[in-house]
Amino acid sequence: MSGNIFGKYITLKTFGESHGEAIGGILDGVPPGIEISSEELQQEMDRRRPGQSKITTSRNEKDQVQILSGIYQGKTSGMPIGLLIQNTDARPRDYSEIAKSFRPSHADYTYSTKYGMRDPAGGGRSSARETAIRVAAAYFVKKLLSQKGVVIRAYVSSIANLELDRDYSIIGSQDSAENIVRCPDSSLAEKMINLIELARSEGDTLGGCITCEVFNCPAGLGEPVFDKLSADLAKAMLSINACKGFEMGSGFASTQMKGSEHNDPFVKDGQGRVLTTTNHSGGVQGGISNGMPLKFRVAFKPVSTILKPQQTLDSEGRLSELKAKGRHDPCVLPRAVPIVEAMTALVLGDHWMRWNALVKAKELIQGQD
Amino acid sequence: MSGNIFGKYITLKTFGESHGEAIGGILDGVPPGIEISSEELQQEMDRRRPGQSKITTSRNEKDQVQILSGIYQGKTSGMPIGLLIQNTDARPRDYSEIAKSFRPSHADYTYSTKYGMRDPAGGGRSSARETAIRVAAAYFVKKLLSQKGVVIRAYVSSIANLELDRDYSIIGSQDSAENIVRCPDSSLAEKMINLIELARSEGDTLGGCITCEVFNCPAGLGEPVFDKLSADLAKAMLSINACKGFEMGSGFASTQMKGSEHNDPFVKDGQGRVLTTTNHSGGVQGGISNGMPLKFRVAFKPVSTILKPQQTLDSEGRLSELKAKGRHDPCVLPRAVPIVEAMTALVLGDHWMRWNALVKAKELIQGQD
Amino acid sequence: MSGNIFGKYITLKTFGESHGEAIGGILDGVPPGIEISSEELQQEMDRRRPGQSKITTSRNEKDQVQILSGIYQGKTSGMPIGLLIQNTDARPRDYSEIAKSFRPSHADYTYSTKYGMRDPAGGGRSSARETAIRVAAAYFVKKLLSQKGVVIRAYVSSIANLELDRDYSIIGSQDSAENIVRCPDSSLAEKMINLIELARSEGDTLGGCITCEVFNCPAGLGEPVFDKLSADLAKAMLSINACKGFEMGSGFASTQMKGSEHNDPFVKDGQGRVLTTTNHSGGVQGGISNGMPLKFRVAFKPVSTILKPQQTLDSEGRLSELKAKGRHDPCVLPRAVPIVEAMTALVLGDHWMRWNALVKAKELIQGQD
Amino acid sequence: MSGNIFGKYITLKTFGESHGEAIGGILDGVPPGIEISSEELQQEMDRRRPGQSKITTSRNEKDQVQILSGIYQGKTSGMPIGLLIQNTDARPRDYSEIAKSFRPSHADYTYSTKYGMRDPAGGGRSSARETAIRVAAAYFVKKLLSQKGVVIRAYVSSIANLELDRDYSIIGSQDSAENIVRCPDSSLAEKMINLIELARSEGDTLGGCITCEVFNCPAGLGEPVFDKLSADLAKAMLSINACKGFEMGSGFASTQMKGSEHNDPFVKDGQGRVLTTTNHSGGVQGGISNGMPLKFRVAFKPVSTILKPQQTLDSEGRLSELKAKGRHDPCVLPRAVPIVEAMTALVLGDHWMRWNALVKAKELIQGQD
Repeated sequence: MSGNIFGKYITLKTFGESHGEAIGGILDGVPPGIEISSEELQQEMDRRRPGQSKITTSRNEKDQVQILSGIYQGKTSGMPIGLLIQNTDARPRDYSEIAKSFRPSHADYTYSTKYGMRDPAGGGRSSARETAIRVAAAYFVKKLLSQKGVVIRAYVSSIANLELDRDYSIIGSQDSAENIVRCPDSSLAEKMINLIELARSEGDTLGGCITCEVFNCPAGLGEPVFDKLSADLAKAMLSINACKGFEMGSGFASTQMKGSEHNDPFVKDGQGRVLTTTNHSGGVQGGISNGMPLKFRVAFKPVSTILKPQQTLDSEGRLSELKAKGRHDPCVLPRAVPIVEAMTALVLGDHWMRWNALVKAKELIQGQD
Repeated sequence: MSGNIFGKYITLKTFGESHGEAIGGILDGVPPGIEISSEELQQEMDRRRPGQSKITTSRNEKDQVQILSGIYQGKTSGMPIGLLIQNTDARPRDYSEIAKSFRPSHADYTYSTKYGMRDPAGGGRSSARETAIRVAAAYFVKKLLSQKGVVIRAYVSSIANLELDRDYSIIGSQDSAENIVRCPDSSLAEKMINLIELARSEGDTLGGCITCEVFNCPAGLGEPVFDKLSADLAKAMLSINACKGFEMGSGFASTQMKGSEHNDPFVKDGQGRVLTTTNHSGGVQGGISNGMPLKFRVAFKPVSTILKPQQTLDSEGRLSELKAKGRHDPCVLPRAVPIVEAMTALVLGDHWMRWNALVKAKELIQGQD
Repeated sequence: MSGNIFGKYITLKTFGESHGEAIGGILDGVPPGIEISSEELQQEMDRRRPGQSKITTSRNEKDQVQILSGIYQGKTSGMPIGLLIQNTDARPRDYSEIAKSFRPSHADYTYSTKYGMRDPAGGGRSSARETAIRVAAAYFVKKLLSQKGVVIRAYVSSIANLELDRDYSIIGSQDSAENIVRCPDSSLAEKMINLIELARSEGDTLGGCITCEVFNCPAGLGEPVFDKLSADLAKAMLSINACKGFEMGSGFASTQMKGSEHNDPFVKDGQGRVLTTTNHSGGVQGGISNGMPLKFRVAFKPVSTILKPQQTLDSEGRLSELKAKGRHDPCVLPRAVPIVEAMTALVLGDHWMRWNALVKAKELIQGQD
Repeated sequence: MSGNIFGKYITLKTFGESHGEAIGGILDGVPPGIEISSEELQQEMDRRRPGQSKITTSRNEKDQVQILSGIYQGKTSGMPIGLLIQNTDARPRDYSEIAKSFRPSHADYTYSTKYGMRDPAGGGRSSARETAIRVAAAYFVKKLLSQKGVVIRAYVSSIANLELDRDYSIIGSQDSAENIVRCPDSSLAEKMINLIELARSEGDTLGGCITCEVFNCPAGLGEPVFDKLSADLAKAMLSINACKGFEMGSGFASTQMKGSEHNDPFVKDGQGRVLTTTNHSGGVQGGISNGMPLKFRVAFKPVSTILKPQQTLDSEGRLSELKAKGRHDPCVLPRAVPIVEAMTALVLGDHWMRWNALVKAKELIQGQD
């Protein structure tokens, strides 16, 4: 059973290889009546697309999304939404060297082992190019969520050892992460950019962390016992290329706290809403959102394709030296920000629709229908 | 759509509340012909059951598993396996206080919000008691995996700030984690036990980390692009009560390495098998296992039910002081070790069966069938 | 991937063999707040249970259902509902003869081929005994549907060549199908009973048809394009033991009509509701319910276990004569009536919950929330 | 939860409206290594495409399939296969009349009720145009099945009251159903063609039955208890537009037979293979294929869009007369033949892959791996 589909009510299924003719997907389960704007969609795409700044790959894809179905008179129709992006700047010739050997820590070896073949051009299916469709699909789900006031904000919180304060919150701040490295602290952002440029000049790559916060997340999202909101977010994040870790709220740091320190006391605000005075839980308790902002952190390794010579095995199993060419990101973090937001939107939209069915049924049972 | 089912080929669906009549589940998709031993099954249960040592809850459940179906003449029959555990030491009377208010950082508030009701006895469905069935089900899957030589070993690698060296590996060592705190370093284990006893005496709780290693994991497990092995492991772990974080291989530490440091170089061993000289990847590359040992780390917060007085809201929304009674774990880490192993087995067994279909089909297509 | 689960939002997963310790299941996705009565549940069970009349098997099972979870203070809690029925009158000794050979047209041969083993006692998993859990689960879903006024009525419309008029409708009639053969025409029912008794005396079996009608089925159930309501009903019915055919509305008879005869003209009634003057569609158009009563017919073959001598192969593949013993139904139709109703309820409840999510989302999008 | 996906291991998800820009789909779960020919694929498409003969709609679509992914060097790669067909002869202007009223027995009313909107052009998503993608996807699955020798042959067995003998079998015969009406009896075919031409001249439509036979179907396909092979075939067929009935083997006729007549006696042939002397079961016993040819019959109503004036309601709910224009099939049976074959292939391929996992696991457990 393939794993090319995500979600249970709102689902996204994707196809496509990095240097094939096109990539695409089907977003399904979106309710009818949501107004759609091609311009807004394209703005989302531009945040992820390659070639957007001096610190990203020089591959130049416009990532123009064709919406092939599911829209009627400018609104979603409730039918599956077919999405397509033509690959326009694919250059399979760059990859002949790679076809001959397994790049260390890349998907080359595992795909070859599993399928008995692999498409070396740009990593084929294993390329992060596939995530462009996730961003396109998430646009529609974000529009749905925005009608409940839900705001999803991800940003780069560390590159190598350059790290934003862990207690930093973008929610309510005037900060903008819309610089090229997408770190909301502009002086730290500058240092990060310099560090990435240095790594690029060395043919090396850097990792880092992305923090995501969700404002106005309704209480009640997440399902006992396996589909906890935090569990589905963890899966969503680890499904992104190069992701190696996830923590909800205080996460790994919580392991060094006592229960009496970690527990988030409940209070009421002036409007009678239930809040907690701290948010170590990151907005999820018992696997279900509690109405506080969601907050989680995602770890990305330095990407494996480096331009330095590396020792490896060729496809005949002989030791050989590999020196990759081609166009690559020295650090995927800035471009991963919209992907983290996209996967967050897919998880929240899915869980929100799953919950809606229950809400409606409860209204009926209680005679309000 | 409820989230009470896990897996795609081998699936586990569970039911039951902490202080209800029984908990149970259905394990499905297990192939026929696997020899089953009730004694072995019970040994697995004993590792998780409450009341097993001085550092766990005093609730005394034998956790005797009834296998109601799916076994014929001592072997699995390929039919769904019905599993049942009677609750014998349930004491609903202990929970009257809890029914009146929301325990901070517990599932009380979120369940009430979502369902408009909640079963206060032992946390109802939100209790970790449910995980007993996961351990029972995993026994059958471990038996299947063991025929491929797969060995799953989890252990406590930190309690509060008492931490095992990150490079420690239990694979190949003579260490046993079969002490009451399940840390393989016996002198560290003793310190951990003392720390937990201290926390209990204070009415407080502690968190920590569990590391899991898998030996002889076949290459090829995991599916592009959403059902990466690491993504499904992340979800599996975050679905365990009190889990707040997951990292694969070098995880969060990888964010501070360069690509040239982090990449795992390929080599061949004497038998011609492909290995990597380091294992920062934790055995997963491109979302698919590469034949190296799996290694990942899981963060557990200090559990929320403490016996110290806490300020909270009662069910009418008034500020009140809560002082929990009842029998609780001061630190869930030791009992979570078999649960981490169980969820790992469910993920690996599921992916292994999913892959088997492909392997068999490839044999046919290549004319070997 | 096993096929022991049914439904997408409201799901039923079952386990258990005919002569094992117990059969059971987990019903999931039922919203909280539905009042439950054990007596009502047992009445549903009594309509299906063996030994209920002179024309059914003499196996005597009380089919007392234990509800192990998912109920709190007499109402559903939104948690999975664990269901269990002990097998009390299992007699494995009756089946030694059957273990040695393959009963013609029974599941013996196919199960042996697929699993490499089979449980001969009562047919093991292939026995219709499993459907008792479907009836138990459907009770909860019927209670949910009844809050929308949905009424499901199935009845025996033919036994062998004794057939009720095809245009007969039980909806609105005073007829009761609560006689032992469950045919609402009492004089026809008597003939059917006589015919079944004759078949039993000959050691033979009879088939027939069940018609099911659903009154007050809301318009809008069913999903394009694969999960048409008629498609899911077809699957549900063909999943019942001995079922060999399904037709929606005019079904096979429609193939002999012209479009101008078959089309159901739309009109409005006095209250402004949209109706059709005929109902050849059986209440489903384009795969979605149109608000008219659902009507469909289900074909059941004569069950394969007969007490007459038959030629067959034994398990070594030698021709041999088989003379079955044991307790069997000469005609399953009367007992299949509650099963048809149960599967109908599972399909409708599932689709209704799936639709609820959309309804709620539409309310939000249109600003009514 | 939408219903736009079919299958569990091999899955097809489709999108697209009749007169939108394109229709498409993603076929997933197909193993790597299958040789693919664009010419063969196109031949399959030509059997379904509109405008192929004088008895089909005059809409002229070439139905040229673009394969956007999942193929590497002429073979399947194991990655999802993206399929796309541009709509080239869409004429939305033909449908303005239809937008104003509900065509009797069409999906107009039910889609409007469910989604609060509908795309009137060609029926939007409810159009049988969607099935073109099913045929395209099935090509790949047929290629897989053909490696096991599986041959799927569907043909028109009745139009109105012109009916082929029920005992007719195309397997082993020299008959070709490759005439324009796809009935293998050439003299009956001529009568059918004349009848269809007559119906067209009257602005009316005709229904009929398609019989499907599968030769060399391996024993062992189908899963207890809900995913019986017959149940999944029933769902597959009822998911086709205008389908109103399904029967497996002797089907409805079996209801008039006694068990002693209906049971299929087992014998061995010269090669030691297990056969049955009759095949009333249609190749499925206990929900699992028994190695005999599959045989089932599918009922299609006369399609609802007729060119005769009909009384109906307009979208304001007023009685009005509707006189449809546009290009329509007077009888969908001939074009439905490849669709029936396609859905059969999807069911068999899915079940075959599901079973492969079990076969491979059994080999391991028995030490053959």
